[in-house]
Amino acid sequence: VIESQLKADSVDKGKYRHFMLKEIYEQAWAVSETLEGRFVNNRLQDNAFGHNAAEVFDQIKSVLILACGTSYHSGLVARYWLEKYARVPCSIEVASEFRYRNPVISPDTLVVTISQSGETADTLAALQEAKKLGVKHSLVICNVPESSLVRESDLVMMTRAGPEIGVASTKAFTTQLVALQMLLIAVGRRFELSQEMEDKIVSELFSLPGNIEKVLKLDETIEVLSQRFADKHNALFLGRGTHYPIAMEGALKLKEISYIHAEAYPAGELKHGPLALIDAEMPVVTVAPNNNLLEKLKSNIQEVSARGGQLIVFMDESLAESSDENVQIIKVPSVANIISPIIYTIPLQLLSYHVAVLKGTDVDQPRNLAKSVTVE
Amino acid sequence: VIESQLKADSVDKGKYRHFMLKEIYEQAWAVSETLEGRFVNNRLQDNAFGHNAAEVFDQIKSVLILACGTSYHSGLVARYWLEKYARVPCSIEVASEFRYRNPVISPDTLVVTISQSGETADTLAALQEAKKLGVKHSLVICNVPESSLVRESDLVMMTRAGPEIGVASTKAFTTQLVALQMLLIAVGRRFELSQEMEDKIVSELFSLPGNIEKVLKLDETIEVLSQRFADKHNALFLGRGTHYPIAMEGALKLKEISYIHAEAYPAGELKHGPLALIDAEMPVVTVAPNNNLLEKLKSNIQEVSARGGQLIVFMDESLAESSDENVQIIKVPSVANIISPIIYTIPLQLLSYHVAVLKGTDVDQPRNLAKSVTVE
Repeated sequence: VIESQLKADSVDKGKYRHFMLKEIYEQAWAVSETLEGRFVNNRLQDNAFGHNAAEVFDQIKSVLILACGTSYHSGLVARYWLEKYARVPCSIEVASEFRYRNPVISPDTLVVTISQSGETADTLAALQEAKKLGVKHSLVICNVPESSLVRESDLVMMTRAGPEIGVASTKAFTTQLVALQMLLIAVGRRFELSQEMEDKIVSELFSLPGNIEKVLKLDETIEVLSQRFADKHNALFLGRGTHYPIAMEGALKLKEISYIHAEAYPAGELKHGPLALIDAEMPVVTVAPNNNLLEKLKSNIQEVSARGGQLIVFMDESLAESSDENVQIIKVPSVANIISPIIYTIPLQLLSYHVAVLKGTDVDQPRNLAKSVTVE
Repeated sequence: VIESQLKADSVDKGKYRHFMLKEIYEQAWAVSETLEGRFVNNRLQDNAFGHNAAEVFDQIKSVLILACGTSYHSGLVARYWLEKYARVPCSIEVASEFRYRNPVISPDTLVVTISQSGETADTLAALQEAKKLGVKHSLVICNVPESSLVRESDLVMMTRAGPEIGVASTKAFTTQLVALQMLLIAVGRRFELSQEMEDKIVSELFSLPGNIEKVLKLDETIEVLSQRFADKHNALFLGRGTHYPIAMEGALKLKEISYIHAEAYPAGELKHGPLALIDAEMPVVTVAPNNNLLEKLKSNIQEVSARGGQLIVFMDESLAESSDENVQIIKVPSVANIISPIIYTIPLQLLSYHVAVLKGTDVDQPRNLAKSVTVE
């Protein structure tokens, strides 16, 4: 523990040009740290969330996730996981909306807040609002011990990503997803998560650092690809299911540091409006893992291509498709569905990084933004 | 009834240059039609939703709304209404996401689908999926009788907007909101909607056609304003609470017919990324009715203005603020909170219309889009 603490506290850029790039490359390590000591004989311990976690998990009937920005995106992925794999009723809302709308909430809900800093003003206020509305149980996923959200929550799952200096969050996001998979296991056991699925998740989590190292090898390919965005001012990001929030996160990264107006859509909504935007000036980035939504996504890709759109498709390497004039395909290492959203995040982080470098922006300190949004 | 049927069936543009403009101007009439015959002595009749509606409404414990595109936006407003005013637990999801993610859903949920055409493929499939998951009660809000969704739903509330020819939906959206207010009353009565609030909603609904006529008088002002968008390729739309979906709808309209990349954000999320996009080339349209969120919204406006952003603020006429170099204020007639989302929709429709005319696009038949999305 002491060793990793030292490593985590190191705040120089080392061999990297920017903190953001360093933090992207630290993700395999940060994930290992976040998993460390939470399992005994490959079994997740409830008390990884606090000494009274088992008692709390036994009582809850649903989960409500509250967060902002990047943390909101990790929560969106978790919602799919909790409902699909464990039948845990889960809802999620942007904290700044939740706190002002007088929502209906049941007392046996576990309110999960997610925040890198633990000081996000709207998220903290949303937690307080939930308590005022009668919620009895709260859990925070956070990267900073002793922060306000940690102090005000019953249960705590610390991500151990180490200090994140780049304003655009990277390793905090992927470690949040790891923390949320552990939450899926802990809560899911009380619902309908099968032992088989639990074992599968644990084994995939342990394989994650190695898979992250593999996908980081795409760095140079993506650096070349980034040139296609150098003169662009707009982009669309498409995904479906758990990969829709990953598309959102990819779009947010590009917005934050390259100032390209990137917007994400669930691919099925394309025909309900945004297709009108498609022309050669609007690259379309698509996240296409090899899952049951692939065929649907391919038909969305066709729609874009038929209208002259330039597609960049991050696709499972086991698929046969190859690039053509309108469609550039980047093959991503094959991984299991359950960890795929984490793996597909990384090439999108690299893409936004290299585009920002090409555009000459201040990568670690983009204009107008602060690292922690501690005001409303 | 026969008279209005004739009027509704009329499919020439009359004195208007485009169907879309005609349909924007038809909204007061369409709202009146949608309200017609649903009330006895100012009391909404349950059977406005079907002869067995009372029995269904008595059994439901929550509402789930499924829709796509513009109809999804009207559902988002309704979610706020149902929870805030009547404490009806309500969730909402894009139909194309819901149908593939194996969601958790309780059998005593009322599934509400919303679709102008009643043939939206993803919405229809989502309804079928909900039934497969055990849901017993369904209701559709639809503008086309005899459509697939009408046939497959237990309860039906027809909007009576008449044929909508413009691909960008206008009168269908505002009449959907009216239908959803009637749903709020019918379901809300079984929950915690007070008689006082019910009476208030009814009275505001009856005042709506007159208020729509009033807000349409902004047409010329907005035509002038539209010139500020003639050379723009991007825009942000901000709102909070019930007016966040209105900002989404405003952004979608601009996307659909002017091909400007417009994106909506809940104003509180601005600091979590999109603020980095703000410069003089990215106009920011803000929907600022006079409600409890106004002060929060004003501080968001300040953030944009301080960073050189050009603001266009649609604001309640009772407020004292006036335009300055960076902020152009358009005063909107004062109305009650409950109908304000409907009223603020209309200037945003006019804005997208006039921008599209200036840009010379095919307003009624924008590129790449179909009126009804009957394929997946």
